[in-house]
Amino acid sequence: MIPYELIRKKQGGAVHTPEEIRWLLEAFTRGELPDYQMAAWLMAVYFQGMEPGERQVLVEAMIDSGRRLDFSHLDGYVADKHSTGGVGDKVSLVLGPLVAACGVYVPMLSGRGLGHTGGTLDKLDAIPGFRTSLDLETFQRHVAEVGICIMGQTDNICPADKRLYALRDVTATVGSVPLIAGSIMSKKIAEGIQGLVLDVKWGSGAFMNDLPAARELAQVLVETGAAFGVDTVAHISDMNQPLGRSAGVWCEVREAVAALEGDGPADLVELSIFLASEVLRLAGRDDPQREVQDALASGRAREKLNEMVAAQGGDPAALADTRLYRPAVTVALQAPRSGYLSAVDTYHCGMALITAGAGRQAKSDMLDPSAGFDLDVRLGDHVKAGDEIGRCYGSRDDRVQAATKELLATLAFSDQPLEPPPLIVE
Amino acid sequence: MIPYELIRKKQGGAVHTPEEIRWLLEAFTRGELPDYQMAAWLMAVYFQGMEPGERQVLVEAMIDSGRRLDFSHLDGYVADKHSTGGVGDKVSLVLGPLVAACGVYVPMLSGRGLGHTGGTLDKLDAIPGFRTSLDLETFQRHVAEVGICIMGQTDNICPADKRLYALRDVTATVGSVPLIAGSIMSKKIAEGIQGLVLDVKWGSGAFMNDLPAARELAQVLVETGAAFGVDTVAHISDMNQPLGRSAGVWCEVREAVAALEGDGPADLVELSIFLASEVLRLAGRDDPQREVQDALASGRAREKLNEMVAAQGGDPAALADTRLYRPAVTVALQAPRSGYLSAVDTYHCGMALITAGAGRQAKSDMLDPSAGFDLDVRLGDHVKAGDEIGRCYGSRDDRVQAATKELLATLAFSDQPLEPPPLIVE
Repeated sequence: MIPYELIRKKQGGAVHTPEEIRWLLEAFTRGELPDYQMAAWLMAVYFQGMEPGERQVLVEAMIDSGRRLDFSHLDGYVADKHSTGGVGDKVSLVLGPLVAACGVYVPMLSGRGLGHTGGTLDKLDAIPGFRTSLDLETFQRHVAEVGICIMGQTDNICPADKRLYALRDVTATVGSVPLIAGSIMSKKIAEGIQGLVLDVKWGSGAFMNDLPAARELAQVLVETGAAFGVDTVAHISDMNQPLGRSAGVWCEVREAVAALEGDGPADLVELSIFLASEVLRLAGRDDPQREVQDALASGRAREKLNEMVAAQGGDPAALADTRLYRPAVTVALQAPRSGYLSAVDTYHCGMALITAGAGRQAKSDMLDPSAGFDLDVRLGDHVKAGDEIGRCYGSRDDRVQAATKELLATLAFSDQPLEPPPLIVE
Repeated sequence: MIPYELIRKKQGGAVHTPEEIRWLLEAFTRGELPDYQMAAWLMAVYFQGMEPGERQVLVEAMIDSGRRLDFSHLDGYVADKHSTGGVGDKVSLVLGPLVAACGVYVPMLSGRGLGHTGGTLDKLDAIPGFRTSLDLETFQRHVAEVGICIMGQTDNICPADKRLYALRDVTATVGSVPLIAGSIMSKKIAEGIQGLVLDVKWGSGAFMNDLPAARELAQVLVETGAAFGVDTVAHISDMNQPLGRSAGVWCEVREAVAALEGDGPADLVELSIFLASEVLRLAGRDDPQREVQDALASGRAREKLNEMVAAQGGDPAALADTRLYRPAVTVALQAPRSGYLSAVDTYHCGMALITAGAGRQAKSDMLDPSAGFDLDVRLGDHVKAGDEIGRCYGSRDDRVQAATKELLATLAFSDQPLEPPPLIVE
């Protein structure tokens, strides 16, 4: 195979043979195809797209670059949930224990935050003692014994994707539907799951800024899952404002715990219950919603979180410790004018989290677990000038002050009342 | 500047500021912008194009990365001709001495062949003793004293282009009009010329396969020249069959010498005279065509070639030596059927030259100066099955045999007579 010819082929909009895609991925993973040729090919894919057959081979090749787990010896349904990422999204921390408490096995390989989006692993890492890097044998044992394990990618699950993602990340080729789909689905399929519920975000804080793009991605993800025999459903949910009231590191853990204790913000609870019910529906349960409500109300879901934390070396007592990561600095967000909250530039809320210390610009950035913000108002809410509408906090005064300014700049107000957007779109 | 943001900007079809383009070029040339990010940006440019203002800054930045020559102390017009490349194109070897014999100064920085196209330098290098790498001071002195010097790129003329071209060459981003224009024009403007005649090829053996693309490139080249105060005209000529009768290394030198001696093939002579007259027209001469004819008929142009060869260390006698580089193997090309020659896949004629030994797949490939082919028939000519319609030759039997097969496969015949395409389109 001649890399130049393969780049030209995709550049011209032609369809690759399975052998060509496999060769590209394998040569790249072995380090034989240089980064600059892969970067050119990725940008050509960005512009020309990929056919279903090409996407399927891409996913296959990424899975085959590493191990594919197998949970077929377990006596229950094995499933996962994946979100395309946003600001304040801590659904995994609620949904994981919730469905595990209902007897579904959850082998969840999760990611870290980068850019404006937060990552589940960063939140778990803040729990004293919690280990997010286990070997795959321990991971599989935890899933079997506890019913759930959430940890980070390992080198032997889709190493091709890992290498490819790092290159996409610096060449502006992350936002390509077939590449997003390939990256998500290869890792999820390699988990050895039977069912997958996808939460595709759309809006100002999502990778898909408009609804048609979110629909296209949802469609491609579902098709890919089906092609590999995984029951896959995708729902589109709103990311035109942060999810829940708090966004950051530890404040999101606290909010997830509150949701599991029946005291979470309405949107987070609604979305978590909805998606958890979808997982149980895939598992063939008769009354998924009631089961989920029971697991919440009975405290079994909250108990499952403690079990998981303890199994992975963390201290469950820390989850209830109100003195832990108490921010040194808190600045009130005051409404700059009276009116209805009409728009939130959620992408820049995520960027303000980087400023505050709760997000990463580069992979090596250290996080401040105490940093984050609360936003007490939702789209459509009326505020009066000077009202305290939230707080920004963290351990460094200069960063929190700067982040506060950035956050206020993300909010737009209007004199006209407006209909808040639906949380679950379709 | 954040490279990622610049890639995203071009990817989205936005227009770069002058500072952004300068920064990209400078950071890349200094080795601070990695190849993979430049490759992604180049592919984005391939799909999204560049506005006139962006192209101009690109050219400026490439010129400013090195030296710009100055011939303003000379008493005559300083001009050059550039062709976008093809198979059998030895016009520079005819036109250069021709216009120099008419008193126009010709500082010609030329290139080597790569892929299916031949390069002027490779042909000159075959002349025993001829030096194609001189320092810029010697180059300028030869132009002033002999009236013409043809040599290769040096490291201090447009080094940014040199580095960029090497990357484009392996990432399939050579065929982008703004990038082609930037590369050609930066080097030509840096030569310090006043006038430039461009020969934009179109057809099966050109980089521009169709006429609209050739027109677009011609337009952009002329605009760029004008923006830098260089009188620039562009003509579109046919590359749907090799130019002249012979293509290769030494056989092309011999054919150029024949043309200067009044014995060249009609198409080569026509195009050389036409383009040379255009150079003289730019120089403000009253009767350019007559002057060119005189220089040819009087032998002054032929004499100028000898002068140039001698000045650059070559042996003029070698040009007349019929025993030099006589091929060890010659295989006749026989018409596979009767009919009219209806199409020549000229790109693959160029690829057959690589097989024969007269072209390069990689920059480091060595050339066989004796290798090449003659094609005695032109589009529209009638042949009978079994007629000898040309010859393929070189020093290695296996390569010549293989090239012969490839060459025959490039020819298509038809029962219907057809109109041969015009050589000079517009």
